[in-house]
Amino acid sequence: MQLWDGHSSWPSSSRRPIGTLAIGDRRTLLGLVVNPDIWFGEAYTAGRLQVQGNLERVLEAVYRLSTPIPSWRERLRAQLAPANTRSSARHNVHRHYDLGNDFYRLWLDEEMVYTCAYFPGPASSLDDAQRYKHDQVCRKLRLRPGESVLEAGSGWGALALHMARQHGVSVTAYNVSHEQVVYARERAAREGLTDRVTFIEDDYRSARGHFDAFVSVGMLEHVGRRRLHELGDVLRRTLRRDGGRGLLHFIGRDAPRPLNAWIRRRIFPGAYPPTLAEVTAHILTPSGMSVLDVENLRLHYAHTLSHWSRRFEAVSDQVRTAYGERFRRAWELYLAGSEASFATGWLQLFQVVFAPAESAPPFWTRAELYTKGPGPPP
Amino acid sequence: MQLWDGHSSWPSSSRRPIGTLAIGDRRTLLGLVVNPDIWFGEAYTAGRLQVQGNLERVLEAVYRLSTPIPSWRERLRAQLAPANTRSSARHNVHRHYDLGNDFYRLWLDEEMVYTCAYFPGPASSLDDAQRYKHDQVCRKLRLRPGESVLEAGSGWGALALHMARQHGVSVTAYNVSHEQVVYARERAAREGLTDRVTFIEDDYRSARGHFDAFVSVGMLEHVGRRRLHELGDVLRRTLRRDGGRGLLHFIGRDAPRPLNAWIRRRIFPGAYPPTLAEVTAHILTPSGMSVLDVENLRLHYAHTLSHWSRRFEAVSDQVRTAYGERFRRAWELYLAGSEASFATGWLQLFQVVFAPAESAPPFWTRAELYTKGPGPPP
Repeated sequence: MQLWDGHSSWPSSSRRPIGTLAIGDRRTLLGLVVNPDIWFGEAYTAGRLQVQGNLERVLEAVYRLSTPIPSWRERLRAQLAPANTRSSARHNVHRHYDLGNDFYRLWLDEEMVYTCAYFPGPASSLDDAQRYKHDQVCRKLRLRPGESVLEAGSGWGALALHMARQHGVSVTAYNVSHEQVVYARERAAREGLTDRVTFIEDDYRSARGHFDAFVSVGMLEHVGRRRLHELGDVLRRTLRRDGGRGLLHFIGRDAPRPLNAWIRRRIFPGAYPPTLAEVTAHILTPSGMSVLDVENLRLHYAHTLSHWSRRFEAVSDQVRTAYGERFRRAWELYLAGSEASFATGWLQLFQVVFAPAESAPPFWTRAELYTKGPGPPP
Repeated sequence: MQLWDGHSSWPSSSRRPIGTLAIGDRRTLLGLVVNPDIWFGEAYTAGRLQVQGNLERVLEAVYRLSTPIPSWRERLRAQLAPANTRSSARHNVHRHYDLGNDFYRLWLDEEMVYTCAYFPGPASSLDDAQRYKHDQVCRKLRLRPGESVLEAGSGWGALALHMARQHGVSVTAYNVSHEQVVYARERAAREGLTDRVTFIEDDYRSARGHFDAFVSVGMLEHVGRRRLHELGDVLRRTLRRDGGRGLLHFIGRDAPRPLNAWIRRRIFPGAYPPTLAEVTAHILTPSGMSVLDVENLRLHYAHTLSHWSRRFEAVSDQVRTAYGERFRRAWELYLAGSEASFATGWLQLFQVVFAPAESAPPFWTRAELYTKGPGPPP
């Protein structure tokens, strides 16, 4: 750690230092002591805190020094997290996802997928890993041609289109981000899939009808702790009791604690990563669902974020020119900090498959998720 | 339904009846109205209630008529379930497992495995399915030669011996059933594995030392709701923080509710099948563990129980001669009722893989659980 006046302190351990934290002024140092969660992000963004060395590895080291068991203060804050109404949900989503498709196109994969990928091997490409993730989601759901699927939170539409194209299902997809829905509808038209995929610009809680399958990838984090039961209501109302099944893919925690305060302020307002116990007790059990399968993909998210960071760095000049240096530094920190969180186990990524308790599970063993080749051709 | 005086009632639906419940006297009919959970079992055992047709299918139909969502009364009873102290745990286990090795040998598989099997396909034999289960448990734990494993509740020793023989690990196995430990030690000696497998006749809560892996198959059901945290204490104390991992295989529930009252009275005193939320919130989260993988094997348990019922029926004359007709009928009902519970989703069978939050998960994808051949040769 290096201070503005030249003073520096090194860890006493004999290990080789990972990097240097250069603190630019006394106010920043005080802020880091009093409220490190907010100040680290704010000072880094403003350039009053500089990191020499690998940012992600420095953040990992910081996380590893901290305890993964939350304090009572954090648990209380998690309990008190505000509930996301429909209008606050729309506002929160707008803040993040309507930054502009052009921004995300700069550094996401070709299909514009902004959720954890599933890498068949550590050396797979990001494009392959996103496709493999979509295919695994469909396999875990055992989608059959002609079935109907409800999707809650559909991003730029890649999964909905994949399901319709590769598995022959019809998809009704809800999303409150206007920019994303416009983009997804254009893609559906271009691919000739408008008869099978309907993108609806509305809150998923408006969904009506009956569906064979439910899927939500990367939306549950935005529901908020006190609104989890509303997803249960949707499941109970819309999922077929005989033979229905669903999949939730979400950023989660081992123990209840709020998301990092700076991330909530600057990047994801209203976000809360729930625990597996919260998801089963508040969503699945009240709606009469049995958990069939859970897979923790946290290392895959660390790997995904590492890909995104490299791609983001490669376009840093363009980002700086279009959005400014503070914005660029905030996103650089957010991507590196998220990677460190998943690498150290501060955050988890759960894929949960479930079905109404009275439905027979859709698979006998999980072997066919892996032993058969990739999904059927279009 | 047919009464002692010749009166009978048929369901009004046009479906073909599955079987006949013949009620022998007025007292039994009243008991079934007032307290069906206890009276069904007691009357069936005493022969005052007869079932014509397939017992398991009749019980399934009864379960399907009931709601899988527990009443507040049941939830309260689940909350008030007594805590199992060491002495009550020993007593409860003695009641069930020390019935005599000869009894279980009559109808279990050749390895004497009394937990849910994992059938690679529905047509696999019970022996193959128990071996496959043991192999899958070892694969999910990624056991490597030379590692140390703590087993809580080791039955007649089949899994401990399998791990040592097939995967080259050393096993310390706790079991409070005297008859089972004697049998398991004899097997270890016969197979020349006494240097690698130690069977300890003691409560698993006495375990000391540090281990690479923890495994418990079919023991958690006997811990009782209010003692779940003690398993967390054992995990925190004994599992290596860097690279340790564990597996819990247990009968569970979607929602908290007590086990059927008759089963608790006559078959499994002190038993409580926990929910996934209870296991994560009371055992894994407080001990700093991350859930890595969950698989629900309830159809495999229905299938296992169907095998056991057929084998039990094949030796019914021997059972009647040695233990009496009431005992035989009680076990017949218990096996059929359990099969119906798993078939209808009243009971679940969860296999949960976990690791200390700071450990890297032991696998990248689950593909190698399925794509590589069976375990390494001895």
